[in-house]
This record gives sequence, C-alpha cells and structure tokens, in this order.
Amino acid sequence: MNIAADMSIPTWADVVAAHERIAPHIRHTEVMTNEDLDRQAGARLFFKCENLQPPGAFKVRGASNAVFGLTEDQAATGVATHSSGNHALCLAYSAGRCGIPCNVVMPRTAPQAKKDAVIGYGGRITECEPSTSSREEVFARVVAESGGDFVHPYNDPRVIAGQATCSKEFLAQVENLDILIAPIGGGGMISGTCLTVSSIAPHVKIYAAEPAQADDAMRSLDAGRIIADDAPETIADGLKVPLKELTWHFVSNHVTDILTASEQEIIDAMKLSWKRLRQVIEPSSAVPLAVILKNPKTFAGKRVGTIVTGGNVDLDRLPWTKH
Amino acid sequence: MNIAADMSIPTWADVVAAHERIAPHIRHTEVMTNEDLDRQAGARLFFKCENLQPPGAFKVRGASNAVFGLTEDQAATGVATHSSGNHALCLAYSAGRCGIPCNVVMPRTAPQAKKDAVIGYGGRITECEPSTSSREEVFARVVAESGGDFVHPYNDPRVIAGQATCSKEFLAQVENLDILIAPIGGGGMISGTCLTVSSIAPHVKIYAAEPAQADDAMRSLDAGRIIADDAPETIADGLKVPLKELTWHFVSNHVTDILTASEQEIIDAMKLSWKRLRQVIEPSSAVPLAVILKNPKTFAGKRVGTIVTGGNVDLDRLPWTKH
Repeated sequence: MNIAADMSIPTWADVVAAHERIAPHIRHTEVMTNEDLDRQAGARLFFKCENLQPPGAFKVRGASNAVFGLTEDQAATGVATHSSGNHALCLAYSAGRCGIPCNVVMPRTAPQAKKDAVIGYGGRITECEPSTSSREEVFARVVAESGGDFVHPYNDPRVIAGQATCSKEFLAQVENLDILIAPIGGGGMISGTCLTVSSIAPHVKIYAAEPAQADDAMRSLDAGRIIADDAPETIADGLKVPLKELTWHFVSNHVTDILTASEQEIIDAMKLSWKRLRQVIEPSSAVPLAVILKNPKTFAGKRVGTIVTGGNVDLDRLPWTKH
Repeated sequence: MNIAADMSIPTWADVVAAHERIAPHIRHTEVMTNEDLDRQAGARLFFKCENLQPPGAFKVRGASNAVFGLTEDQAATGVATHSSGNHALCLAYSAGRCGIPCNVVMPRTAPQAKKDAVIGYGGRITECEPSTSSREEVFARVVAESGGDFVHPYNDPRVIAGQATCSKEFLAQVENLDILIAPIGGGGMISGTCLTVSSIAPHVKIYAAEPAQADDAMRSLDAGRIIADDAPETIADGLKVPLKELTWHFVSNHVTDILTASEQEIIDAMKLSWKRLRQVIEPSSAVPLAVILKNPKTFAGKRVGTIVTGGNVDLDRLPWTKH
C-alpha cells in the first residue's frame, strides 16, 4: 500500500523532537515488576505503566506532540478529532494544557464518564449517531466550522512519533530486553514501538497482542494487506479499530508476530494485573499479559517489556462482577 | 503509661540502621499526584504508594527489619506472630526471603486469600478460633513448640523503626511538606512517622485518620490514656486493633490530631483513589483521603503527604459493587 502524498513516515529525529516537546506535559511512567507473574510466565516481565499518565493512557504522548507542535496560526483554531475513547480524553487534556480549543465528535452512545472527562478537560463535544456515515458527516461539519487541525487517533505521523517516546523511555529504563509487546488496535502504539526499536534496538523483537474477537490485525499480517472488520465486539474496547496506511507500514515491516487471546483470557489477565501489580488497568492493557501466559514457548526465559496502555475503567462495571 | 522494661523506645539511629538493613528487601515506593484530587481538596496532595510493596503493604518494612536483624541463633528457630492481615503476609514474605521459618496463628475465619498468600510465601499457619482467648492459647503453644521470635504487628521497637523508613523516604522524595497523614489502627505506621518527623522534620504536623466506627485512637488521645474497643466493625479491616504502650508513647507525644471518616466516606475515597490514581488500594488506605476531603479548614492550601498503606483487596467483593 502506498502512503498518501500528504502523509510522511515519521523518523527517529521526529521521535527525539517529540520527546523534548512533550516531556513537560507527560509522566515519565514507572516500570513495575512482580515475582509471581514472572513465575507464572517463566519469564522476566516488565510493565511500563501508561495507565499512570494524567489522563490515564499513553495516547497523551501522541496528542500532546500534535498539540504542542502546532504553529501559532494553527493553534488559534485548535484541534479536532473523532473518538469515543482515550484519544478524545488525551487530546482534550493536551489542548487544555496548551490553552487551545479542542472539538471532539463522539457517538451519543459513548459512556457518560468519557464525555464528562472530555468536558472536564475543556473539550467541546459534538455528538453523532453511532455509525461511520454519521460520524464522517458530523466531523466534516465540525472541522469546517471550527477550522481545527484534525489529529487522527493513530494514522498521523505526529501521533506515531509521540507514541514512540514510550518505548524510548522503556528501553532506557530496562536493560537487555529481548521482546517488547503491546496491544494492537489501530496500531499507533505498536507503530511507535516499531519506529523506536528499528532505530535504536533492532535486536529487540516486537509482538502485538489482540483480542481473538477483533483479530483483524493478525489476519492483515497473514494476508499481507489491511483487513478491516465492520464492528468487532470485544471487552477490549480500545482495540476495535482497524489498521490504516501509516500503521500498516510499520506493522508489516517490523512486527514479528501478532498473538490473540479470548475474552475470558483477557478478563483473567486484567484481574491478575490488578491483584499482583495493584494497578488499575483497562481490558485492552491486559491482552499482552494474556498472550504471554498463553504462549510460553515464545516468551519463556526472555526479558519481556509490556506496555500497559491505559487505566480508564468503569469501576461500576468490572467484567468479573455481576451487574 | 510506663514502657515495660524489655521494651525500648526506638531512636533515629534505629531507623537509619533499619533502612540500610531492609533496603534490598523492600521497594522504594513511588509518590503519585493527581490534579483533580488536588482541586477537590484545595491542597497539594502526595501519595506514597506502599500498596506497591511486593507483598502489598508497608508492613514489609517492620517485618523485614525484625527478620533480617535476628542473630544467627534466633534465625534458626525463625519468627512467629498472630495476625489475620497484612502483618502475617509481610512477615511470611520477609521470612521467606531470609530463608527462616515463620509461624502464623490466624483465626480460622480469616479470608482464604490471606491464608493462601501466607502459605505461598512459605509461612506455616496454625488456626485458632476467632477470639482473644483462643488466639493467646494457641499462640503460646506455637511459640513454645517452635521457639520462634515473636514479632508483634506494631508494639515492637524493631517494627516501629522499620515503618519509620517510609516517612524517611517520603520526606526525601517531596520537599516542603506541611503535613503527613496516615491511617491509625494499632499505631505502627503513625509511630514510625512520629519517630522520623520528630527526628528530622519537627515542623511537619502529623495527623492520623481513623474510621468513625473504630475511633478508639481518637478517644484515647482525648482521654489521655489507651481506650481499647472490644470488636469494632469497619470496612477498614486493618484498623480494628487498639493502641499499645509503645505506639501510645509516640501518638500521645507527637500527633497533632486524629480525624475520623464514616464507612461511606471511606468507600467513596477508596473508589476515588482507584479512579484518579489508578492504584488498587485497600479500604484502610483510603481513610486519610476521606478525612482530607472532609476537613478543608485543616488541609486547604497545604502540602500534604499521605501514606497509602496497602493494596490487598478481595477483587470479588468490592464495597461499591453488589455481591
């Protein structure tokens, strides 16, 4: 697949610039370990806790790289995006810190807690129907009216360069990693990881973890082209979106393998993470641990870095409790 | 109240020695902050996350100070204690790391998860009935048979010196604190905090936080003598035990005030901590935040250090979900 003319592939220099730009606005997140999880996996596991970012997800890296990299003219009209999840929160958070407008198109069915968070950070929500056609129509109107710069959740070189700062920190925090693993949805975090690893640690293998019920990235890698599912259903709600041209570029060139886990395996790994790491992490963030425990031949004896992508969870609707 | 002849009051030199002794066996825990919590409190809040200790509680500090300070002869027969909570886990954990026996007397009604954890760390459990008389009788027999050194959960100078290393780290991590606050049950953590603060930061005020339904420490401070309740009922299960002579010494001399929170306020603060800090913390650990939010006149405008004491929670029985 060709990359569109207006879409440049981000480079290592972009990552270094991004890290300098966003450092004052993000948390240099902690790496956690746990002996019991190591025993269960037969590996040495390191968890980089992006759930500890102020708005609760790694996406603040890419969002703040886009926001704080705007020209003065661009900043005047602010940013715009469509997202029902962490990208919306993180873009609103970053725009709020920068003092610029942020317009977010969200389906009216999005969780009220997410909407409240966007508004709390100073974002402006325009609701659409939960369909692609409605979203595109409403978003086009919002952009036309606001003049906001569109920051795509992942198919944007500024966003990928921002996400790449996570593995840049991780490789500096933990020596001699054999493997880096992260969840894959649209592929923003994995693409950033590919960018960093191919630039400064090409011996580290990159694995992606995906819900079996939303395994479009795995099937894409097998088929050699992007396969997009219509409306996959999984508890890992951050991982429902398909790859796009930029993220496909990185995934197809640098990912060793994509492994999947069932819904129950994801829930079990999420609960295990809460219990052992004592971190509140969202279902999407538990998919890597689920596949690590499921594939000992791939991970046993290795030093494995896992990116814990976020911690925005509805505490009233935990997947292992009745409601 | 006089201190028994065999019970010396720990000094700052003991704290410094304890910190050197236990440093390889504990986590130098992170301090978390959150802008939303700051806004709600009208203060600058810092949370020292002892829930991140490997066995999930600050009590690993005192326990490992006792264990690793044993003579070779004492180590041969190991340690013994009675506890249904974090002290049991932490003593078993520390003894396991040291490779010495650990006998724990636990009520047969203690949560199976706690028993499993003690056994998982290599501890040996002897069950008693859930009454003081049964516990004392069984414990006396276990000590006679094993010869283990009794490590009291809090009324032990080695334990208090160990807990004091927490505020020693905290004061080095955060500059210019005005207040330190921690939950109070038997008073081990608060006593350690008193020891550190009175030694190296006497301008810092110390507050203790207690469930209104187990407010024996507050009533003790008011009355000028230890008041012990028979069997208080509170969700903050780590805070049901009464002060003893050593902890009373520190509390009565150095604590500015003891503030209480209702059960619902504790649950709300616990849930708020999970949501904002994205840390799994137990109910006892939420009592300080509950009293901070309830007493703005005391805390507003201040830099407040809160000790988050532990994160051992039954994830299947969260207080805000039906079960």
